[in-house]
Amino acid sequence: MKDLTKEIFTMLFLLTDARYLLRTHKFHEGGRYLPRGELMRILVEIKESLKRVEDIIERGDYLDVGGMDIVEGLEVRTIEEEYININPIQVGGRLTPEAMKAIIAYADGYSVCDWCLKPFRLDRIRRPQLERFHKELAEFIGMREARLVPGARRGFQAVINSVARDGIVLVSSLAHYTEYLAAEEAGAKVYEIPVGEDNVLRPENLEEKITEIKRKIGEEPDLVIVDHVDYQYGNLHPIRDLSRVAHEHDIPVLCNCAYTLGIMPVDGRRLEVDFIVGSGHKSFSSPAPSGILGIGDDYVEKVLSGSRIRGDVSGRTYPNKETSILGCTLMGCTAVAMMASFPRVKERVRRWGEEVEKANHFCQQFLRIAGNRVLSEMPRRHTLICVDTRESFDKIARGHKRRGYFLYEELRNRGITGIFPGATRIWKLNTYGLSWDEVRYLSETFIEIAKKYGIEIQ
Amino acid sequence: MKDLTKEIFTMLFLLTDARYLLRTHKFHEGGRYLPRGELMRILVEIKESLKRVEDIIERGDYLDVGGMDIVEGLEVRTIEEEYININPIQVGGRLTPEAMKAIIAYADGYSVCDWCLKPFRLDRIRRPQLERFHKELAEFIGMREARLVPGARRGFQAVINSVARDGIVLVSSLAHYTEYLAAEEAGAKVYEIPVGEDNVLRPENLEEKITEIKRKIGEEPDLVIVDHVDYQYGNLHPIRDLSRVAHEHDIPVLCNCAYTLGIMPVDGRRLEVDFIVGSGHKSFSSPAPSGILGIGDDYVEKVLSGSRIRGDVSGRTYPNKETSILGCTLMGCTAVAMMASFPRVKERVRRWGEEVEKANHFCQQFLRIAGNRVLSEMPRRHTLICVDTRESFDKIARGHKRRGYFLYEELRNRGITGIFPGATRIWKLNTYGLSWDEVRYLSETFIEIAKKYGIEIQ
Repeated sequence: MKDLTKEIFTMLFLLTDARYLLRTHKFHEGGRYLPRGELMRILVEIKESLKRVEDIIERGDYLDVGGMDIVEGLEVRTIEEEYININPIQVGGRLTPEAMKAIIAYADGYSVCDWCLKPFRLDRIRRPQLERFHKELAEFIGMREARLVPGARRGFQAVINSVARDGIVLVSSLAHYTEYLAAEEAGAKVYEIPVGEDNVLRPENLEEKITEIKRKIGEEPDLVIVDHVDYQYGNLHPIRDLSRVAHEHDIPVLCNCAYTLGIMPVDGRRLEVDFIVGSGHKSFSSPAPSGILGIGDDYVEKVLSGSRIRGDVSGRTYPNKETSILGCTLMGCTAVAMMASFPRVKERVRRWGEEVEKANHFCQQFLRIAGNRVLSEMPRRHTLICVDTRESFDKIARGHKRRGYFLYEELRNRGITGIFPGATRIWKLNTYGLSWDEVRYLSETFIEIAKKYGIEIQ
Repeated sequence: MKDLTKEIFTMLFLLTDARYLLRTHKFHEGGRYLPRGELMRILVEIKESLKRVEDIIERGDYLDVGGMDIVEGLEVRTIEEEYININPIQVGGRLTPEAMKAIIAYADGYSVCDWCLKPFRLDRIRRPQLERFHKELAEFIGMREARLVPGARRGFQAVINSVARDGIVLVSSLAHYTEYLAAEEAGAKVYEIPVGEDNVLRPENLEEKITEIKRKIGEEPDLVIVDHVDYQYGNLHPIRDLSRVAHEHDIPVLCNCAYTLGIMPVDGRRLEVDFIVGSGHKSFSSPAPSGILGIGDDYVEKVLSGSRIRGDVSGRTYPNKETSILGCTLMGCTAVAMMASFPRVKERVRRWGEEVEKANHFCQQFLRIAGNRVLSEMPRRHTLICVDTRESFDKIARGHKRRGYFLYEELRNRGITGIFPGATRIWKLNTYGLSWDEVRYLSETFIEIAKKYGIEIQ
């Protein structure tokens, strides 16, 4: 941890202690009583920290100092402050400053429930303005309704339970594991639609698979799940064409937008899909677990129906509670963080083109290293990139005393992190959110490491 | 919002901006480049805020100032800093200072995944030490295994799907709505065990209900869900005796500890139950959504079995991913917040006796107001209290120009919040976590309001 980072966290934590003082010393004999001494001591410590920050800025370089533990076994995480992070799953889920402030202010458990009035539902709360947020979110993704869910997987689960329970679900052969598990948990059978040699799903593959299932099992699938961009190659799949094939067979389509909703434009109506599922912690700058379930016109009633149970003794009913999502979902900091990130998310989606440009710039430079390959489709249409370095870095790894860890460590020593420790064969990175400076530095660093080990640069 | 509270948030937010500066200005031509001007401006603003805080402390009283918005429609929440909060569902979910620091440090989406190595599971991550936390948590609740889930309802869902899918689930007639919905979503039929006139569940009621179900439907229930403490009256139910009845019929028992796990002692082995489900945001000082699923010896394999699906095209399998909880659950700030709160939670559970004493003190004072009744069992064995003020405050409400809102407003003007706005008939409060000073002040305030409106004090 660098000294400057440590001072920022030191002050954030001191202020958290001050906040806790307010919370624990509210009243004394009817009036507010503050332990002045304790509060003053905190102020003094903040001033000392400020002074140290000024010294650091004056000095102009940053020293390594020890880490900080919050409780035993829980160190302060500073990767995003101190490294260029290219972790394939983390980059779209880094919080906006607004979301950081939101989780500070709404840290407590049921923090959004202060003004929960009839009909007692998260999507109807108006203070904070969650009702409006839900409406704007539905518009943003081009769906009739939107709900917040604890992660994309819970969106898959809600839809599968509603339309394919004990049925048949088709997924891409590149599908994420959570699609399989959500189907399995709903008692559904899962079959995979094979992708082409280019690792892109084709409408004809889907048509064939539906025919095959009908022939073999005598039934039509109940749901098709397609990945807008898959997690393995970051390839963009032709959702609208796939959807049209499914719809010819009257099969509804769920588009898994975990890698797209919140970073690139997603419009359910243009994609002609029935369900959109997104991930807050993957692509919407939100804390885990958070996700978005978007539902098209034809399925609102089916998926968002209220509970039909009536207590046989109490007579109680819960018609306002939506069964598939089990009523309220994100009743605290996760929901407000999504709301707080939304303005910046809308804005960044418009800048998606430049993000793709940066990814392509990286690939061009990366491919100058002899033996390097990019396994994702080229040119890139997404910032998630799957690379093959078996003929370059892996050859070095075999003779290196740190084995495969050498690459991870060489990068880390140069301020870059996020590749899987030990990976030198086939691995992934994601350039999303890096500045041009950072992308150039990243590209140059790989070349520099290659040169150091005598790999040819073209 | 009071001026002092506002200054604390102002500084927290300024430091969040400073942190964001670190994040967005990491590298420039290979070296760290910081926008000194911007950072210095933030430091100056923090100093100004510190100066104002000193003035406020010097002055010794706190002025009302305007609120702060994070984004439009999202105001800073200051209820816990500025009011004595007796909200029935919020008090056990207020964060510890350690949890607040944890969510600041682990704010970003997949923040706990930096060191996720084989077998790629949340409960096996060692940095932060989530693996040890899971083990200690299982011990703490006296169960074989513990898993984190996004809210208690997701724990119910995992268990019902595993042992009572399309089956029969018995719940208390005081059960929480999420138990009904989780059963409904799993295709199970729900029947209620009637409570006695004292609103406590009796073993003989359970025995009768099982007999009735067998007679009417010809089947035995697949699962019994009992509430350790119910949400309606806060009554403590005889779990071990109920469990023994269910076990005589070979029916597993899930104990819903949403109102107990994390604030009072819960030991699954002593309760002789098969499953424990707790809520992080209700009783474990954690952000929403978070919860705990504890599983006893006999059901670990059944509930925590890995996925059995094999991709028919890809051949991929996920035997390490636990299907009932859909793999990983809380991959960010929610998980570390639970871990950070754990030391203080363990400690506070030992002080449960005093919390109950305070609740009883409140009830004694509250009952001095003529017409007031406590509908919860007396003496209290829990801090959640259901009261009936139809013969006292509701009579005033009928003639008051603010109608039922008068009570809410009278309390709020005296620094107390958390009762349902408009409630003057049957309503709930929770004294958990209040200091003795605050409990006394709370009791006196109700008496003061009663006196103001001419209600007799005994």
